[in-house]
Amino acid sequence: MRTYKELFELISKHIAETSYGAEPRELYEPINYMMSLGGKRLRPVTTLMACNMFDEEIEKAIPAALAIEMFHNFTLVHDDIMDNAPLRRGKETIYKKWNMPIAILSGDLMMIKATESLCKTETSDIIKLLKKFNDIATKVCEGQQIDMNFESRNDVSHNEYINMISLKTAVLLGGALQIGALIGGANEEDAGHLYEFGKNTGIAFQVQDDILDSFGDAGKTGKKTGGDIAADKKTLLLIELLAAAHKDDKKLLQELMNEIDDDKKITGILQLYHKYKVKEFAEAEKEKYLQLAYRHFNKVNVNADRKSILKQTAEELMSRTS
Amino acid sequence: MRTYKELFELISKHIAETSYGAEPRELYEPINYMMSLGGKRLRPVTTLMACNMFDEEIEKAIPAALAIEMFHNFTLVHDDIMDNAPLRRGKETIYKKWNMPIAILSGDLMMIKATESLCKTETSDIIKLLKKFNDIATKVCEGQQIDMNFESRNDVSHNEYINMISLKTAVLLGGALQIGALIGGANEEDAGHLYEFGKNTGIAFQVQDDILDSFGDAGKTGKKTGGDIAADKKTLLLIELLAAAHKDDKKLLQELMNEIDDDKKITGILQLYHKYKVKEFAEAEKEKYLQLAYRHFNKVNVNADRKSILKQTAEELMSRTS
Repeated sequence: MRTYKELFELISKHIAETSYGAEPRELYEPINYMMSLGGKRLRPVTTLMACNMFDEEIEKAIPAALAIEMFHNFTLVHDDIMDNAPLRRGKETIYKKWNMPIAILSGDLMMIKATESLCKTETSDIIKLLKKFNDIATKVCEGQQIDMNFESRNDVSHNEYINMISLKTAVLLGGALQIGALIGGANEEDAGHLYEFGKNTGIAFQVQDDILDSFGDAGKTGKKTGGDIAADKKTLLLIELLAAAHKDDKKLLQELMNEIDDDKKITGILQLYHKYKVKEFAEAEKEKYLQLAYRHFNKVNVNADRKSILKQTAEELMSRTS
Repeated sequence: MRTYKELFELISKHIAETSYGAEPRELYEPINYMMSLGGKRLRPVTTLMACNMFDEEIEKAIPAALAIEMFHNFTLVHDDIMDNAPLRRGKETIYKKWNMPIAILSGDLMMIKATESLCKTETSDIIKLLKKFNDIATKVCEGQQIDMNFESRNDVSHNEYINMISLKTAVLLGGALQIGALIGGANEEDAGHLYEFGKNTGIAFQVQDDILDSFGDAGKTGKKTGGDIAADKKTLLLIELLAAAHKDDKKLLQELMNEIDDDKKITGILQLYHKYKVKEFAEAEKEKYLQLAYRHFNKVNVNADRKSILKQTAEELMSRTS
């Protein structure tokens, strides 16, 4: 069994060696730039990890792992335009470094290259993999649209929120595992349990992100605590507060959301979070999805020693404080 | 053999019956809107026509024909953002009717749905079709980028221009025919000749577009003659004039290009077009690519009666005056 570090190095090498094309350079330079920005490479690593759970020959999952990383980066490039985001992993976004048309077009091409890479998988049933991949890609687009719709709404329900983060981010982690498992020879049932494991872990992970943003240690996260609050982001915390607050506190919350002094706004809303114990609620939610994830994980029909690395990876992800 | 009209009606029915999805409606309404705007449906019809050249059962080429039409519409949606275009087929563009993020995202999803549709083709070699499809999609993106690069250049060469229109528009017509032929059971050689036929016809078609814009009868084209001239578009005519004009005329051309009165500008540049016979040159170019197209067409190894409808379609396209 390969470790995260070994798989990370393997996929990083392949990403660095992948040639997307050269001319016109205005199109290919942004793709190379984006793909070299780095990060944890969580999705492609877990694709390899899921394959490795069923097969020692993990090289055959490389094209699919690359496809998933390219697809993920394509969504980031286009999301950055939609969100008008200046930075990505501490570097300028394509949209800012080049321009909007180039960001649209290089993103488009990354999506095409993702499918192209997946098609290089040596398998007897490429259609099955493509179907899973396209289903997930569809869901990710739907999640992004739902997230954008939330911006202008103040009545987002708990279930709507969980559905949105499930589509926008969690299903891709599920799909990364599922596709890797299928390439490794897993049957539909085991691959399905890994999909559910990845999806539910992904939801828990996103809830944890919400918690850390408001309650994390700025020294560890490297981000100003309360960034989501300042930006009026519809996090699970805010949604729960909106649902739980009594009439007077709801009025106070509305006033605080209109407050222009960010420090006052963050302090005030954090007090309401404490009063209504939304952190505890969110942590219970996170725990619920983690339990659900492990229920599926335990049903995957392979020896415990073949599961240990993926389990350890998930535990490390969930114990982070930054 | 089915006629254009029969194939047009068949594909129109399938386009109208295709369900892309429902929720979130902000994402699916624009897709349904775009796909229902109509047009000649030239690309999917020719996919069916190429299949029909080798096989009477054309239903099996429907998913691929739909894929090509969805892909084409995806490129239009994103191009309209990049070009800041308000209208498409006389209706508001998605970008204008909704907004930029929705146009990006619904375009993305149309690309995904295109691949999804192609994957529904019943064939023993789906990888071959996907490879052709992704190659063409890559070329179309490259062509769009090269076209955008031209905007800030005054030294575009004849060959660069032909390469750009080949990538941006002509290869898709070639690919539509090639993929249809392969689904119909054509061998690689015949499918390759049909690709070249489509590509070269596409180039001729684009050159004709350039000619009609400057020399067409406004009453027939429905567009103001000289639109390209007014917009400083790098057409084959302008590129040839820039290459052929003597020193004084080059200076005059530069002055005319800076002229703010559109009528003066158009009249002046048209005079230079006449002086340097660029229309005649462009017509000879168009003829050259048509000849090249027919050379490949004639090499397709099927009976003449199976080729007649495609030939007639190409002739009708090229004899249009609007």
